[in-house]
Amino acid sequence: MDNSRYLKKILIDKVSGGEFIEKEDVVIDESRISIYLNGEKTISMMCIPKNQEAHAVGFLMSENVISNIEDIKSINISEDGLRVDIEAIVDESSLENLYKEKTLVSGCGGGVTGNIAGNVEIPFNQVSMEVKAETISSEIKKFYEDSELYLLTGCVHKAMLYLEDKTTVTAEDIGRHNAIDKVVGLCKLRGLDTTKSVLFVSGRLSSEMVVKAVMHKIPIIVSRTAPTHLGVTTAHTHGLTLIGFARGKKMNIYTHSGRIIG
Amino acid sequence: MDNSRYLKKILIDKVSGGEFIEKEDVVIDESRISIYLNGEKTISMMCIPKNQEAHAVGFLMSENVISNIEDIKSINISEDGLRVDIEAIVDESSLENLYKEKTLVSGCGGGVTGNIAGNVEIPFNQVSMEVKAETISSEIKKFYEDSELYLLTGCVHKAMLYLEDKTTVTAEDIGRHNAIDKVVGLCKLRGLDTTKSVLFVSGRLSSEMVVKAVMHKIPIIVSRTAPTHLGVTTAHTHGLTLIGFARGKKMNIYTHSGRIIG
Repeated sequence: MDNSRYLKKILIDKVSGGEFIEKEDVVIDESRISIYLNGEKTISMMCIPKNQEAHAVGFLMSENVISNIEDIKSINISEDGLRVDIEAIVDESSLENLYKEKTLVSGCGGGVTGNIAGNVEIPFNQVSMEVKAETISSEIKKFYEDSELYLLTGCVHKAMLYLEDKTTVTAEDIGRHNAIDKVVGLCKLRGLDTTKSVLFVSGRLSSEMVVKAVMHKIPIIVSRTAPTHLGVTTAHTHGLTLIGFARGKKMNIYTHSGRIIG
Repeated sequence: MDNSRYLKKILIDKVSGGEFIEKEDVVIDESRISIYLNGEKTISMMCIPKNQEAHAVGFLMSENVISNIEDIKSINISEDGLRVDIEAIVDESSLENLYKEKTLVSGCGGGVTGNIAGNVEIPFNQVSMEVKAETISSEIKKFYEDSELYLLTGCVHKAMLYLEDKTTVTAEDIGRHNAIDKVVGLCKLRGLDTTKSVLFVSGRLSSEMVVKAVMHKIPIIVSRTAPTHLGVTTAHTHGLTLIGFARGKKMNIYTHSGRIIG
């Protein structure tokens, strides 16, 4: 895929040991994308203007504003890529809740979620599924090897869904949240089942990242880095297997380890 | 300082080469803190329940809801540490704007800011100030050596203000935004001037991090990692010196390099 449109060339001063040299450098695009739902502006997000459809769908489904992909009648993106218009059947109480209380969350990508506030009842995830520890290790290795925008700019988070048929879907964004919403949205738009998948994310697992996995009934979430305590307790409460510090052949399983086999 | 109250002990499964061993581990606390302004709930944030006063003050001043520290009549924290009550003279239009449009931003710590939307006019920063490149290098080295919560949990961002008298003030949080709001709030509460300071942050410099520096008239911002394009253009427009990839003796100066000398 051609990623060059998301890269911006600029002139900078490179300093090395007191010496200043003017050089060309490349930085990632960051744009404000607005989502309009049934004609009304719902939210704006600062993100990479890529996979906007998937982003909007994933976000609205993460927030339970749209319950089923079939409830979406149409999706249109403006010519400049900065406005997504969705016509859909919405859950009015979730939409209202999205506006009612603001919670600034800790993850890259920001987040305003009514779900954390406990307004949506989510059943305990009882999916029985087994994944080998070595599969987690080999998949996270591939996950990090294959991220062009990160390698070029150092300013990108990534999310990947490893599906039951062993195929993967990936998405990148400047925000952790956005990367998850995008990858889930891509799967929803393609009609792929995520209820027996593993979600790999590049960022830390604070509660709102875990909530997104819970909302989409994803049974396993894996990160190369650390969870917060609320991330761990949220995973525990909802039946999600949470894995952190997955590096090389090592990993920490914080909750519901029964899904991971040696 | 005793940080143990922000650490939670849990039992986890450590996996190494297919072998599972149950062990005690430590993760960072993540709590929902609510800010009440003149008796009304204004916002909730997911963060480490530490420096709540400074956090609330820094956030409200970043958002221009409170313009001057003298406008605050009282600050109270509830016994459980989860509620901050502030009595203050507020800028009603900024407060309203905080509620009006939601923008999910890309930085750890989330963010809802009316300032990015351009509702607040901020003059171009013309402060003349010179800092040696080697001072930036030595300060960022110290910045990373001295972060107990990060070393223990791997789940913490840090912000530091290097003031004109060469003293420093630091704050940590799970979110980048929160760490900046906390360190600015600490300075405001102590009556310290930040208009000739350098802001060091551990995270990436997306636009909303830069906007916080702009709002507080901080002339220089430094990160060990990358900026976004909008971060760079925001710094350019507002007269902020933006430095990224500050590692060892190297750094990239993206804007207004005149304040940095060899």
